[in-house]
Amino acid sequence: MTELDNALLETLLDQVRPLTAQGKVADYIPALAEVPAHALGIAIATPDGQIWQAGDAQTRFSIQSISKVLSLSVALTRYSDDELWQRVGKEPSGQPFNSLVQLELEHGKPRNPFINAGALVVCDMLETRLTAPRQRMLEIVRQLSGQSDIQYDRHVARSEYEYSARNAAIAWLMKSFGNFHNDVSEVLQTYFHYCALSMNCIELARSFVYLANQGKTADGVPIISPRQARQINALMITSGMYDGAGEFAWRVGMPAKSGVGGGIIAIIPNKMSIAVWSPGLDRIGNSLAGTAVLELLSERLGSSVF
Amino acid sequence: MTELDNALLETLLDQVRPLTAQGKVADYIPALAEVPAHALGIAIATPDGQIWQAGDAQTRFSIQSISKVLSLSVALTRYSDDELWQRVGKEPSGQPFNSLVQLELEHGKPRNPFINAGALVVCDMLETRLTAPRQRMLEIVRQLSGQSDIQYDRHVARSEYEYSARNAAIAWLMKSFGNFHNDVSEVLQTYFHYCALSMNCIELARSFVYLANQGKTADGVPIISPRQARQINALMITSGMYDGAGEFAWRVGMPAKSGVGGGIIAIIPNKMSIAVWSPGLDRIGNSLAGTAVLELLSERLGSSVF
Amino acid sequence: MTELDNALLETLLDQVRPLTAQGKVADYIPALAEVPAHALGIAIATPDGQIWQAGDAQTRFSIQSISKVLSLSVALTRYSDDELWQRVGKEPSGQPFNSLVQLELEHGKPRNPFINAGALVVCDMLETRLTAPRQRMLEIVRQLSGQSDIQYDRHVARSEYEYSARNAAIAWLMKSFGNFHNDVSEVLQTYFHYCALSMNCIELARSFVYLANQGKTADGVPIISPRQARQINALMITSGMYDGAGEFAWRVGMPAKSGVGGGIIAIIPNKMSIAVWSPGLDRIGNSLAGTAVLELLSERLGSSVF
Amino acid sequence: MTELDNALLETLLDQVRPLTAQGKVADYIPALAEVPAHALGIAIATPDGQIWQAGDAQTRFSIQSISKVLSLSVALTRYSDDELWQRVGKEPSGQPFNSLVQLELEHGKPRNPFINAGALVVCDMLETRLTAPRQRMLEIVRQLSGQSDIQYDRHVARSEYEYSARNAAIAWLMKSFGNFHNDVSEVLQTYFHYCALSMNCIELARSFVYLANQGKTADGVPIISPRQARQINALMITSGMYDGAGEFAWRVGMPAKSGVGGGIIAIIPNKMSIAVWSPGLDRIGNSLAGTAVLELLSERLGSSVF
Repeated sequence: MTELDNALLETLLDQVRPLTAQGKVADYIPALAEVPAHALGIAIATPDGQIWQAGDAQTRFSIQSISKVLSLSVALTRYSDDELWQRVGKEPSGQPFNSLVQLELEHGKPRNPFINAGALVVCDMLETRLTAPRQRMLEIVRQLSGQSDIQYDRHVARSEYEYSARNAAIAWLMKSFGNFHNDVSEVLQTYFHYCALSMNCIELARSFVYLANQGKTADGVPIISPRQARQINALMITSGMYDGAGEFAWRVGMPAKSGVGGGIIAIIPNKMSIAVWSPGLDRIGNSLAGTAVLELLSERLGSSVF
Repeated sequence: MTELDNALLETLLDQVRPLTAQGKVADYIPALAEVPAHALGIAIATPDGQIWQAGDAQTRFSIQSISKVLSLSVALTRYSDDELWQRVGKEPSGQPFNSLVQLELEHGKPRNPFINAGALVVCDMLETRLTAPRQRMLEIVRQLSGQSDIQYDRHVARSEYEYSARNAAIAWLMKSFGNFHNDVSEVLQTYFHYCALSMNCIELARSFVYLANQGKTADGVPIISPRQARQINALMITSGMYDGAGEFAWRVGMPAKSGVGGGIIAIIPNKMSIAVWSPGLDRIGNSLAGTAVLELLSERLGSSVF
Repeated sequence: MTELDNALLETLLDQVRPLTAQGKVADYIPALAEVPAHALGIAIATPDGQIWQAGDAQTRFSIQSISKVLSLSVALTRYSDDELWQRVGKEPSGQPFNSLVQLELEHGKPRNPFINAGALVVCDMLETRLTAPRQRMLEIVRQLSGQSDIQYDRHVARSEYEYSARNAAIAWLMKSFGNFHNDVSEVLQTYFHYCALSMNCIELARSFVYLANQGKTADGVPIISPRQARQINALMITSGMYDGAGEFAWRVGMPAKSGVGGGIIAIIPNKMSIAVWSPGLDRIGNSLAGTAVLELLSERLGSSVF
Repeated sequence: MTELDNALLETLLDQVRPLTAQGKVADYIPALAEVPAHALGIAIATPDGQIWQAGDAQTRFSIQSISKVLSLSVALTRYSDDELWQRVGKEPSGQPFNSLVQLELEHGKPRNPFINAGALVVCDMLETRLTAPRQRMLEIVRQLSGQSDIQYDRHVARSEYEYSARNAAIAWLMKSFGNFHNDVSEVLQTYFHYCALSMNCIELARSFVYLANQGKTADGVPIISPRQARQINALMITSGMYDGAGEFAWRVGMPAKSGVGGGIIAIIPNKMSIAVWSPGLDRIGNSLAGTAVLELLSERLGSSVF
């Protein structure tokens, strides 16, 4: 197993850089389409506080669906297992992330918290039990990352809201089955703000180290229980990479969650959290170069969980 | 982390034994319905050749879909990655194991090798490149387990064939898309024989230790490459437990494959392979008590991959 | 062929009256559940102005989906065929009336104007080209029926709106595909008002005589062209009775449109329009006794189009 | 309403002849692809024995799915309504003619007798109650058409059988649900023979006049009851033209059944049966020029049932 250092990370980025020209930047909202297509960055954080980085690791981007892991983590602290898992499942969907087909056939209970429907249910649950869900998430992320200036990108949040028809359809469909309790428009606003969190790779790696550290931050602050950390990692490996989770586990072998902003957060349990960023996506919606660099890293470190 | 010994395994079996009364024994074919509902066994094998066991670990049963891991392993030795994965995918299906809906929508390419459609494609590929696929599999299993008297249960195989309409439909549908090359009836016969392999927990644990040993048997014989072993483990964790893979990963956190005969094979990478058996199934089709004992074991050993 | 008179209609009602105890009154909104379950009425209107009636033919009820024929008729006068039929199809759906599955698979284009999705697209189109779509529809219905006091039942309309989650999901899904142009909430309000038109059998029969009279009212006022009248009749026979159109054509053999309020309007081309009402529904959502009386009438008059 | 004569039919054929260049000849089996693409014919038969014809009305072709009406008619004489309709439905499918999706979701009961699944169930039923189902159908067709030399095109039948994977999948899927009783291969052979009946427009028009004559041939021989004739016409209008029944009813307004050989049989109840033939198909699978000539004829004769 290779030793980690910034030079190794630079080498890996160089290997995958040609792929940045091949992916397709998300353009379903104008605000995302403006991102620099060739950006490429990586950062790694360990439970004992070390950080490695390379490339555009200090440029902030829209974390998008990576935020689904954060909202689930918060929900786990406010709801019992019984309450939470009767409203959202734990199984891979075998469907595109925003499909309504399965949701209707399964009576409004989303397959897992990492597809849009599931994340919307989680946000609906937070809306019920948090007094100011957007402000609260900001506080949490600032605490996790140690960066007090993290913000929502309001330009992105507004743009998402303007193109929110599909997510509104999902929310209303769940409401028709009694699985959505708050005002649709209000919850969508919260959901889009979470998606519009603007963070860089270093901040992301640092924020998610609790999943590689038995549920605690590098400073030892407990966020969730050790068991819950294992459970989130399990959900990420089966459902974290949209309809490409199987391929990703096969190639990389780490629990991970991607976002259409081009970010991926990956976990080596008990060892480290890794954030990569490259906006060009494969046809499933996962960062093309980001996945490739994680695959190389997995080989070099022998860090597959398998 | 607790030390392993037979007494610990006995204790765990005692804890889950009440569950054996709650599951439902598979009865879609008469031959399977005859099995003793309260049977309960476990065996563990390590790369260095150790064996622990408890309960009905020496009673043979029908391994059913556990054989899908064996046929995939053999296929990996006879086909290149390109050849194999263009005919079967690597993603969870989000559907019952024998559904045709997704198969039609995705033009006859099964989602993964562990649902029936995928295993049938793999058997079709073996039919093409093995001269006597049933005899060959027997030889392989006898070699892996070190038991030269392992046999197909011809009563079960015949019974399966008599109730094979759904699998025939799946095979013909794939043929209509050009993804099935040999005689349907011939391949079904092979497939049902593989399912009808009769093995006990000790034999199973020993046979699958190559997945916990970089692809090699405890005697050091290479079966597949280290990378292929990791890849199969990845496929098992995302797709090995029918439409309950997410829940299983969340509760147990090990790559595993189940069969409707009530067996489960689970892998702790680089450490051990575990075989459990209890015929009562949950509504998804996985052994109820078997899953529970793996969950307890995972907790006691701290052996989740996450 | 029997001669029509009120006594014959009374006889037919008597024959089917026992069925009124067997159907299930729609209760998805409280306002509809309040209706008298055993009501039973029929009225027939001819192009030359004759009216026959029996039973509760003068009690108003909520016409519900029967209004979908009216909104389509109005849309045909405001849009060219090309404009209209590129946004909604002409095929039976083979699905429940409020399903989103097919709508997603077919990219937001509803199968026909008589399922909810299709009717919502038609209302969206009317919203674009009518200045006051609710007031305009009232004027049209008053003109067609010759009753100037026809009103929306605001209690029902409000109740529908409060339980509108499924229809909102449908509208938003179409919006996500670009097939819905106006404000969802506004169009839903219009749609629910149309459904909440309160009319009796006589008023209904009189209103729809244009479909039995080459597109003209009994007074000779052209509403739509003769060809358009034939086309609407064709759409009704293939798609007018929810997912029971085939059975209805087989039993009754008339173009017809039903509503969950228990009303059905049926057409004998060039001869008469028939309105029946009985609130008890079969499992598809069509009036149980209403269908039966139309079947008897069809036999007595030899009036199947086949 | 125009008077019928051969000259009128010639004129109509001339009008639609350019369309023969636009359709796509069925090529899923080699035997069908060999047909002359520009063939165009029409024949009309009346209950009183008159025949009109134009174009290639005397060239035989493969009647394909038109035979589904014949097999249903025979089944109606051998089974009670209860027996028949518990095994096949009466509703349009809203799906391609050979889809398995709906069939699985609806537990192996086909939507109607005119999609492949439904026709296969009907053939399975005939296999049970007819002693020599292929010979018997030949006798019936020779009687109906008055042509004792009508034959199966064995070249086509064999070709169908060689490409029968999709239909085999459908049959096996129904068998898995208990809705298919005889040997799959045997029934497929019968089914393909029926599809391979070789007839010309005159023979077809004459054969189907019973549907325009209260169930009797022009010679007064009762084939089915008057009610059954009406019911078959109803099924044809809702489900006879694959997934284009709605459009066909809207344009032409006649009960009809098409085949991928390019034939269509259409009925004007109590007046005439019309057979058209042109091998070029639209994207749904219906004859392009054939549909167009029926539309023109409907306008000229005012013969829409609506």
